[in-house]
Amino acid sequence: MFVTFLTDFGLEDDFVGTCHGVIKRISPEAEIIDITHGIRPGRILQGALVLANTLPYMPAGVHLAVVDPGVGGQRRPLVLQDAEGRLYVGPDNGLLLPAAERFGGVVDAHELANPAYALERVSRTFHGRDLFSPAAAHLAAGVAPAELGPPVAPDALVRLDVPEPRIEDGVIGATVLAVDRFGNVALNLTREQLEDAAVVPGTRVELAREGDRWFAVAARTFGDARAGELILYEDSYRNVAVAVSSGSAAELLGVDEGSDLSIAPQ
Amino acid sequence: MFVTFLTDFGLEDDFVGTCHGVIKRISPEAEIIDITHGIRPGRILQGALVLANTLPYMPAGVHLAVVDPGVGGQRRPLVLQDAEGRLYVGPDNGLLLPAAERFGGVVDAHELANPAYALERVSRTFHGRDLFSPAAAHLAAGVAPAELGPPVAPDALVRLDVPEPRIEDGVIGATVLAVDRFGNVALNLTREQLEDAAVVPGTRVELAREGDRWFAVAARTFGDARAGELILYEDSYRNVAVAVSSGSAAELLGVDEGSDLSIAPQ
Amino acid sequence: MFVTFLTDFGLEDDFVGTCHGVIKRISPEAEIIDITHGIRPGRILQGALVLANTLPYMPAGVHLAVVDPGVGGQRRPLVLQDAEGRLYVGPDNGLLLPAAERFGGVVDAHELANPAYALERVSRTFHGRDLFSPAAAHLAAGVAPAELGPPVAPDALVRLDVPEPRIEDGVIGATVLAVDRFGNVALNLTREQLEDAAVVPGTRVELAREGDRWFAVAARTFGDARAGELILYEDSYRNVAVAVSSGSAAELLGVDEGSDLSIAPQ
Repeated sequence: MFVTFLTDFGLEDDFVGTCHGVIKRISPEAEIIDITHGIRPGRILQGALVLANTLPYMPAGVHLAVVDPGVGGQRRPLVLQDAEGRLYVGPDNGLLLPAAERFGGVVDAHELANPAYALERVSRTFHGRDLFSPAAAHLAAGVAPAELGPPVAPDALVRLDVPEPRIEDGVIGATVLAVDRFGNVALNLTREQLEDAAVVPGTRVELAREGDRWFAVAARTFGDARAGELILYEDSYRNVAVAVSSGSAAELLGVDEGSDLSIAPQ
Repeated sequence: MFVTFLTDFGLEDDFVGTCHGVIKRISPEAEIIDITHGIRPGRILQGALVLANTLPYMPAGVHLAVVDPGVGGQRRPLVLQDAEGRLYVGPDNGLLLPAAERFGGVVDAHELANPAYALERVSRTFHGRDLFSPAAAHLAAGVAPAELGPPVAPDALVRLDVPEPRIEDGVIGATVLAVDRFGNVALNLTREQLEDAAVVPGTRVELAREGDRWFAVAARTFGDARAGELILYEDSYRNVAVAVSSGSAAELLGVDEGSDLSIAPQ
Repeated sequence: MFVTFLTDFGLEDDFVGTCHGVIKRISPEAEIIDITHGIRPGRILQGALVLANTLPYMPAGVHLAVVDPGVGGQRRPLVLQDAEGRLYVGPDNGLLLPAAERFGGVVDAHELANPAYALERVSRTFHGRDLFSPAAAHLAAGVAPAELGPPVAPDALVRLDVPEPRIEDGVIGATVLAVDRFGNVALNLTREQLEDAAVVPGTRVELAREGDRWFAVAARTFGDARAGELILYEDSYRNVAVAVSSGSAAELLGVDEGSDLSIAPQ
């Protein structure tokens, strides 16, 4: 059974390795796939979007995700099941839902409340190790979700607000969802929405942010751009993104996750 | 058979991947768990404490650890066995002992001296690849420790000085053991020692370092703190730590591993 | 079957994890060894040298490597086979050849053109996920390279220029191939070439770069150097390298991959 694993733990510390150890002690046959541990600390929305984007590429199994700034507080720990039978383990803060909705939505949910499926001592600050990893490992070993705790109504689960683009007077107001290692800037915008605003490959646009302006061109791929030219393209997760050939668009534009950026066709 | 693996190699270079390859060529059935490779370069004490803290969460097996600033010099390469049968592979610089002592102490020790269990050519600078990984892999494949080289008396092994907190006139003098990715600052101090100095949840304390002073409050968990407030709490490895909600305590205090910090109850 | 995996994807994003998922969906039995994902973005030469250096330490199998600044353009995607039967998957930009040449050279090459062995939708920007990982997974599952697409003549493959050292008036002109996490600086120079220029352990040399000069001493190992002294030594991949005990030689010299450095015996 596969356990996929996504967190904001980073790889400098032992957090991820320790969770691997906990899973393997309980379920030596489980095979762990680390999706990423590079979610920015506490950024639930980024974690939720990456999980939703990547899960279609993962074998079905138990999907463990921990971005949990509320650890030790009142938020519930959960196991969810989607319409295709995938299982999700993580905090009730909206992190898991966008992924589950890609597979038909949540059909069953339970709070992790049965101490038989947690470590003997549960710390107040590291539920990834003490609560979520053991639950995922037991599920991978065949324990039924209902064994882990009382049911929760799916419509009582915490949901995130995913920012929507605004279009006004032909100008698109977009938000940066993510910046990757290459400095490419993914926006909360689809190619269809861009085309609705009459931006198609070849169209020149003006990008603006806090008084600064740049020209860019809509393109099919990096190869269509000249060196140093900003392009708008559909990225591999089907978000519209901004890139600059041989450089970092994020640095050039001075944007980061959550920044606003407006796009005006010229 | 599980091989756990902890180093200061980082993940930017190929050091860790190359060791995985070496282990898998010798022992294809071995399953490697990377505890962390983020130990600061050459920081033996940090490596020793992380190994000791995390091993209780790992399946028993062969525990390979390399933080080895003396590579190529006179320090001995070792295999140790603890009272519960776990095996440890690494340099004789104190790195392995705090972990082994959590499992009853070292009952058997051998120097890695038999070239049959090393790579054919042993470089002067990368014993992780050429000496330690092959030894761990052969042990995982069932070779007995005594095959790897002559015995070493357990009390002749190099030991580290672990800094102890000092309490004077009611003021605690602590040392920073580690800073994690979230900026939380772990001290060489237990909750029991803090309580002996009359600091219990709710107590206000003054932190001081090189003339700078901050107020903090002892708390059970992050949730008990207001935004921006420094708290003292027991972390998930049972060290007293300093955190600040929604921020980096390490940055705020200007501390790093090895820094001194005094704590005075108010 | 082992699949080794080397890229410039980094570990902050989900690129590597997503490729793992793709491979495991197609070939659940494949075992992936991550050589490194820390190649600098787009540095094909660095990727090629690391692959060639590390493959002798890896179990034979399918060797997947992606450093692909030309993704989405005209460069061909490839599978190669070397004289010992190892398979290589990656872009036709020179990345794979230095490794294959260590094992007798390329004896068979095919372009990845058969859509049956790619994902259903191939994006323009992430061939690692959509094209190369599926190909590697199918090969690991036993599909023959010839199934993946039409043959390519081995001598039509793109080759890299590997910089050669120049020796003039007894002064060696070397180029920095790589800088590792410890700040050690690997040069395009072998110990034999150094000895041909009369530099042997104990010889003092002058390093020069853009008008700055430093003294260094040729040494067998770190242990032969005094604190703060620059040394020239043969590193674990048999390149001549520059190090400084307890410090970063790269920082001291102000060099990075591609920098020139001259070495004059004193």
